[in-house]
Amino acid sequence: MTVASYILDSSNIPLITRFHARRQYSLDLAKSLTSEDMQLQSMPDASPTKWHLAHTTWFFEQFILHAFIEHYQSPQPQFNYLFNSYYEQKGERYPRAQRGMISRPSIEEVYAYRQQVDTSIERLLTQNSDAELLSLIELGMNHEMQHQELLLTDILHAFSLNPLYPAAFSLSGQPERASAELSLSEQFVTFEAGLHEFGVDPQTEFYFDCEGPKHKAYVAEFTLAKGLVTNGDWLAFVHAGGYDNPVLWLADGWAAAQQQGWQHPLYWRKQGDEWFQFTLNGLVPLDLTAPVCHISYYEADAYAQWRGCRLPSEYEWELAARAQPIAGNFSENRVFTPSPSRTPDDMQLHGDVWEWTRSPYTPYPGYKVPDGAVGEYNGKFMSGQYVLRGGSCVTPIEQMRATYRTFFYPHQRWQFMGLRLAKDC
Amino acid sequence: MTVASYILDSSNIPLITRFHARRQYSLDLAKSLTSEDMQLQSMPDASPTKWHLAHTTWFFEQFILHAFIEHYQSPQPQFNYLFNSYYEQKGERYPRAQRGMISRPSIEEVYAYRQQVDTSIERLLTQNSDAELLSLIELGMNHEMQHQELLLTDILHAFSLNPLYPAAFSLSGQPERASAELSLSEQFVTFEAGLHEFGVDPQTEFYFDCEGPKHKAYVAEFTLAKGLVTNGDWLAFVHAGGYDNPVLWLADGWAAAQQQGWQHPLYWRKQGDEWFQFTLNGLVPLDLTAPVCHISYYEADAYAQWRGCRLPSEYEWELAARAQPIAGNFSENRVFTPSPSRTPDDMQLHGDVWEWTRSPYTPYPGYKVPDGAVGEYNGKFMSGQYVLRGGSCVTPIEQMRATYRTFFYPHQRWQFMGLRLAKDC
Amino acid sequence: MTVASYILDSSNIPLITRFHARRQYSLDLAKSLTSEDMQLQSMPDASPTKWHLAHTTWFFEQFILHAFIEHYQSPQPQFNYLFNSYYEQKGERYPRAQRGMISRPSIEEVYAYRQQVDTSIERLLTQNSDAELLSLIELGMNHEMQHQELLLTDILHAFSLNPLYPAAFSLSGQPERASAELSLSEQFVTFEAGLHEFGVDPQTEFYFDCEGPKHKAYVAEFTLAKGLVTNGDWLAFVHAGGYDNPVLWLADGWAAAQQQGWQHPLYWRKQGDEWFQFTLNGLVPLDLTAPVCHISYYEADAYAQWRGCRLPSEYEWELAARAQPIAGNFSENRVFTPSPSRTPDDMQLHGDVWEWTRSPYTPYPGYKVPDGAVGEYNGKFMSGQYVLRGGSCVTPIEQMRATYRTFFYPHQRWQFMGLRLAKDC
Amino acid sequence: MTVASYILDSSNIPLITRFHARRQYSLDLAKSLTSEDMQLQSMPDASPTKWHLAHTTWFFEQFILHAFIEHYQSPQPQFNYLFNSYYEQKGERYPRAQRGMISRPSIEEVYAYRQQVDTSIERLLTQNSDAELLSLIELGMNHEMQHQELLLTDILHAFSLNPLYPAAFSLSGQPERASAELSLSEQFVTFEAGLHEFGVDPQTEFYFDCEGPKHKAYVAEFTLAKGLVTNGDWLAFVHAGGYDNPVLWLADGWAAAQQQGWQHPLYWRKQGDEWFQFTLNGLVPLDLTAPVCHISYYEADAYAQWRGCRLPSEYEWELAARAQPIAGNFSENRVFTPSPSRTPDDMQLHGDVWEWTRSPYTPYPGYKVPDGAVGEYNGKFMSGQYVLRGGSCVTPIEQMRATYRTFFYPHQRWQFMGLRLAKDC
Repeated sequence: MTVASYILDSSNIPLITRFHARRQYSLDLAKSLTSEDMQLQSMPDASPTKWHLAHTTWFFEQFILHAFIEHYQSPQPQFNYLFNSYYEQKGERYPRAQRGMISRPSIEEVYAYRQQVDTSIERLLTQNSDAELLSLIELGMNHEMQHQELLLTDILHAFSLNPLYPAAFSLSGQPERASAELSLSEQFVTFEAGLHEFGVDPQTEFYFDCEGPKHKAYVAEFTLAKGLVTNGDWLAFVHAGGYDNPVLWLADGWAAAQQQGWQHPLYWRKQGDEWFQFTLNGLVPLDLTAPVCHISYYEADAYAQWRGCRLPSEYEWELAARAQPIAGNFSENRVFTPSPSRTPDDMQLHGDVWEWTRSPYTPYPGYKVPDGAVGEYNGKFMSGQYVLRGGSCVTPIEQMRATYRTFFYPHQRWQFMGLRLAKDC
Repeated sequence: MTVASYILDSSNIPLITRFHARRQYSLDLAKSLTSEDMQLQSMPDASPTKWHLAHTTWFFEQFILHAFIEHYQSPQPQFNYLFNSYYEQKGERYPRAQRGMISRPSIEEVYAYRQQVDTSIERLLTQNSDAELLSLIELGMNHEMQHQELLLTDILHAFSLNPLYPAAFSLSGQPERASAELSLSEQFVTFEAGLHEFGVDPQTEFYFDCEGPKHKAYVAEFTLAKGLVTNGDWLAFVHAGGYDNPVLWLADGWAAAQQQGWQHPLYWRKQGDEWFQFTLNGLVPLDLTAPVCHISYYEADAYAQWRGCRLPSEYEWELAARAQPIAGNFSENRVFTPSPSRTPDDMQLHGDVWEWTRSPYTPYPGYKVPDGAVGEYNGKFMSGQYVLRGGSCVTPIEQMRATYRTFFYPHQRWQFMGLRLAKDC
Repeated sequence: MTVASYILDSSNIPLITRFHARRQYSLDLAKSLTSEDMQLQSMPDASPTKWHLAHTTWFFEQFILHAFIEHYQSPQPQFNYLFNSYYEQKGERYPRAQRGMISRPSIEEVYAYRQQVDTSIERLLTQNSDAELLSLIELGMNHEMQHQELLLTDILHAFSLNPLYPAAFSLSGQPERASAELSLSEQFVTFEAGLHEFGVDPQTEFYFDCEGPKHKAYVAEFTLAKGLVTNGDWLAFVHAGGYDNPVLWLADGWAAAQQQGWQHPLYWRKQGDEWFQFTLNGLVPLDLTAPVCHISYYEADAYAQWRGCRLPSEYEWELAARAQPIAGNFSENRVFTPSPSRTPDDMQLHGDVWEWTRSPYTPYPGYKVPDGAVGEYNGKFMSGQYVLRGGSCVTPIEQMRATYRTFFYPHQRWQFMGLRLAKDC
Repeated sequence: MTVASYILDSSNIPLITRFHARRQYSLDLAKSLTSEDMQLQSMPDASPTKWHLAHTTWFFEQFILHAFIEHYQSPQPQFNYLFNSYYEQKGERYPRAQRGMISRPSIEEVYAYRQQVDTSIERLLTQNSDAELLSLIELGMNHEMQHQELLLTDILHAFSLNPLYPAAFSLSGQPERASAELSLSEQFVTFEAGLHEFGVDPQTEFYFDCEGPKHKAYVAEFTLAKGLVTNGDWLAFVHAGGYDNPVLWLADGWAAAQQQGWQHPLYWRKQGDEWFQFTLNGLVPLDLTAPVCHISYYEADAYAQWRGCRLPSEYEWELAARAQPIAGNFSENRVFTPSPSRTPDDMQLHGDVWEWTRSPYTPYPGYKVPDGAVGEYNGKFMSGQYVLRGGSCVTPIEQMRATYRTFFYPHQRWQFMGLRLAKDC
């Protein structure tokens, strides 16, 4: 078993075309950034744009070119040290917290490196259609999609420290606004109890190891909110003293909130009496009808306590989501900001914001860590983190499945993270 | 709903007698300690013996005397500030990390405080048999049992920093040794898949809120080791380079191991070529047949990886344990050190060492945090910690049930923590 | 050359009698403390009373008994590890920050250790009158005097963390109060410029290496305040926003003040609108006429800036002080709190509070670090610290000379530290 | 009194020409750097090249344009927040440790800002010849010279973290090498005792406030080494175990060395058995005849102890240096690396490396902090730092005087710091 499985491409688009487009999309996202922007690392959790562009390339080189081309010689052997993220089995790594110090290679050299590796991959693809090769290219593309998301979350964080409030993108046109009356965050839908199968269908074209294996689990009756918690909802929590009442909080959450001085979501800014939000489109007035975003698990849990509710489990979320088509406000919309719900049936389970679940990120029953360096992709992170589901406005849609699990620490806030309420019946 | 439920006392021993004995046991445990010993706080996680003796008393005063005696006046009103542990709803608290600074009140004053409160409780018990009162006294006794365990784990940690290797207790006689041939740690028993009920039976005399509510869960087929991993097993892991091989470890675990310089369990000591273990009976030669103890979750998980196994879930453990009587090496044995398994059928599921499970400490389906300060007992700790099961050689046996869940952070080692292997089928 | 020089005893009191009295004084100071009090270490800079009592004994054992008694066998060889403070040449040391963890040996064992060593020293003194022996005993006694001061400053700090405000001593009678009109802190005396000799006279009975060698230095004309800055003066600084105005502060001082949240001297406490001070006699109303105490160098310097003045250099202080007899409020008064000036001529140069000087603690011209472990006494601390002069209300008077230099880091506050203003002419 | 004094320009070169050249030199130094390089901040002590270029411009704008042009409007008002270094009286400042996050403004915008401010200054100079204006321009130029040095020390530090070993400059030609026989580091010259005047002559064209006022000080007889300690000398210290022997070290120095793991100067690198040094010209073989560089005060002091010597005081250094012309290996040589001594008379008192003195950076007798923000230039740093003298291979020569005092903390190593031995007679 490998970290990800690839069966066949149902899209009828040749893999080489999809590979090319996927790689190009990274360049597109970086297009409006300067070489100075691409150098920024604003915290150890985040990485510079340039590093993302190089690391995704390194991934193809390490896991494919070295494996499938005899006597492959990297054009840049030192890049193995610089651009390995965390694969212990691939050798020593440059210290994570110093990625912002890599002014050399220049961004032009990184572009050239991308070009060299892409050419080699494309040549390889014309000569070889080995299933493992195809599977690994698919893995590399999915890996690149993850970094296409991180590239945006990381530059947003870096820009948030600049008092000039730079906009990474200029939004063309106004985002659609919901009517003020449409509030779905506390309308609930009930789901019956039952023994269900969870985990990815092994016939799925591509999935990550942590999405399987398929297994049974019993889920008790529950109700789930039809809509995401909005900025307007959250403002009520702020006004009600939610950030000052320890009784609502997990003990670790309260400690984090006090130590970090949390009083509102990460990118909210107050100027005089008005609330704004810093976004990839710069500083904009806070949209009260849009989903709240950039909150930690601890904050999400405290909010749910305050509402007499709880967060859904990842199984509950998946039961609701798997009936729905994968559609919504994803990266390709190029809005890069969560949008309000547009219709009373628009549950926004997919896209807009990742939804915190109450489920710690643990192995599914029967899960085994794959052998080799690729086995370090997911398994070794299965402690201390929580599962989020559904993808966000900076997630490439091609990456999404109802079984997709992402995971972050409960104190982390810089991803596009929001929440939906649930209740026991 | 309250944090704990108490129905009726099946033991035929009057509550007042049991209360008196339970309170006395704390004094017994501290008998061999000097007033200087009882002052020690060796890390923020641990507390001085004197503090444990006072805090358990405070608990009865706050939750019972203040509630059931009109116009109750504490003889020591300042103690509410000094000896509240973490109950936000009971007011400000003395900083946890400074508990070792409380040289006043003296231990004699704390003994007098215990006496005063005990007298009040006993008087109250002769006048009032309100169910809630009885339930809260039962809660206070269970709370005291928890601190009877912590008192021992904390003094062991404090003494471990003293190069004179003081013994808290002098062991009378040699502990029984297993024959070298008896090794159960990799003999496995298989359990069939099935949908089971978990969580405490509401008819149980006493239990903590987090043990319920009763709920269904599906458990896939699995096998469980008949014996605990031993010191001898662990020494093989040390010799095999287990502490130096990142591939075996969770990412967070590897980071913790490097930062803390872990190379063996917490209280192992090497002198020349010989291994010793620091215990409550002082420094003794390492018993290779006894269960390994004082290891973190991260170490337990790495060991299981090395053996091609995994840790059991708390459901799996409970399925195996609930068939067995609660018997084994508990606090009342006054050995205070894990013992080897004595027969091929002695699974040691109860007593000796708490067993790390792979289950994060999360609320069971349907769990609700109780109202009031007592609701801070368990619920607010439900993030970032793992469940351990089975009790240890410093756990009072009266406290144990097959449904009992204790919980610690995955980096913590100073409790009597060990492990048992499991596998998927 | 040795760390200290001893010539002859002018006091006519036999050394053995003085030795006995000096050792006894340590016990006297600890008399009102419980064994729990003596266990406390409230910060790495401070040490437990028990440790002081043992370490001063270790000093006699290491530097004298081991040197002068052939085949000397310590009754407690492990104490060399536990009670060595910082002498690298005397072997490994127990970690400084863990001194509060030494519950064993008990205080009774430490008393017995003191007795054993004292007996050996006294026996040695009847047999041997070697000059180096006498000199080292004198050094040990001066070392003990330093620890008699530290014992008090350290227990004051530890007690300050206890909300019960324990008093180490009960003051018999009211301290004398100055008339409110007598304010000497800004009456100035002028001293002419000149080339002077500084450093101890080598004929002095006893002195520390850092007080010499005798050397010339030129001092420009200056004026020095007749009195110490008082609590009343300091309150005006507080009210004038002195703690909130960065322009008054050294850059390092401002950083320390912000990080530590300084808003007043270390032991001032405000209850409602009234100011109190925590002292060795417990919490008492702030005496506005008494010298301000427990302020850092940074605070002293900011205050002087605010007054348009500066701190005196250690040479300036010495020029003023060496004309005066060594008399004042010292430890033997058993007041243990700074007193107000009583007459218009009472400059309080000696006793009451150590006075911060603007002089970094550096070697005098020609200073050489003595050979051997005793050379670690002073020389290795000659960076980053400032000199204070004059002794305090917890300093034994026998220890004082006009040339005596003590030294602390500019952020430290827990010693009895105050200030006197100076100005250029 | 102001922070610096300016009398008249003896050079016959018009100020406007010198201003232009001085500003241009900053651009010259940055010429070989990419916009990504100029973004780097490798530690809080260091700043990005771009920040240096902007901050020096801000200095002219704040201290001159705002003061001398009525209703001056900055083209970039936000730059006051971004590019103020530490002037509390000039308003809030962007956090120092985040300077590397300023990707916007771009380097092109910073160049434009420089151009705008320079134009305004030059226009002002044609209209106004007020002495205070000229004095402040002189101050701004000297401030810029200091940053021309820091720009180089900071980029060297940033590049040292890049495993590709980038060279900031390519050295044209080989540096001159001394003959192996010429070793001056332990040839000593004796200076007689005497009462001398120190501090800058008030007739000097330009000097910093901390260089005065003129004052008398007595200096005892001493001897001073004719040469700087070399890399070869230092290698002997390394081989003799100097980094492992606590007896040689100041207590604070030993603690720093252990915590930081110091085993050699900051930029020495060992590859196999060969020593290299990372320089602004990249990684080069260690030149044993060149002065040792990039060592802390603590290391310098330990080395001197090891040689039975000490560091000179700043007065001693000044006595030796003021007889000598200001000439040597300075920034304008564009070697940017310390060179060996070339003749037996070449004492290298000026240039090559700043020489640690044993003198803490304290105010000279009679020194007063100037009023206004410019008073924050020097005075507030007068605690905890040591004086270095003589300038280095990255110091502009125009900046140097025999009275010039620079200052750094004793643990800092990233400046071009070396040492010369001294002894008492």
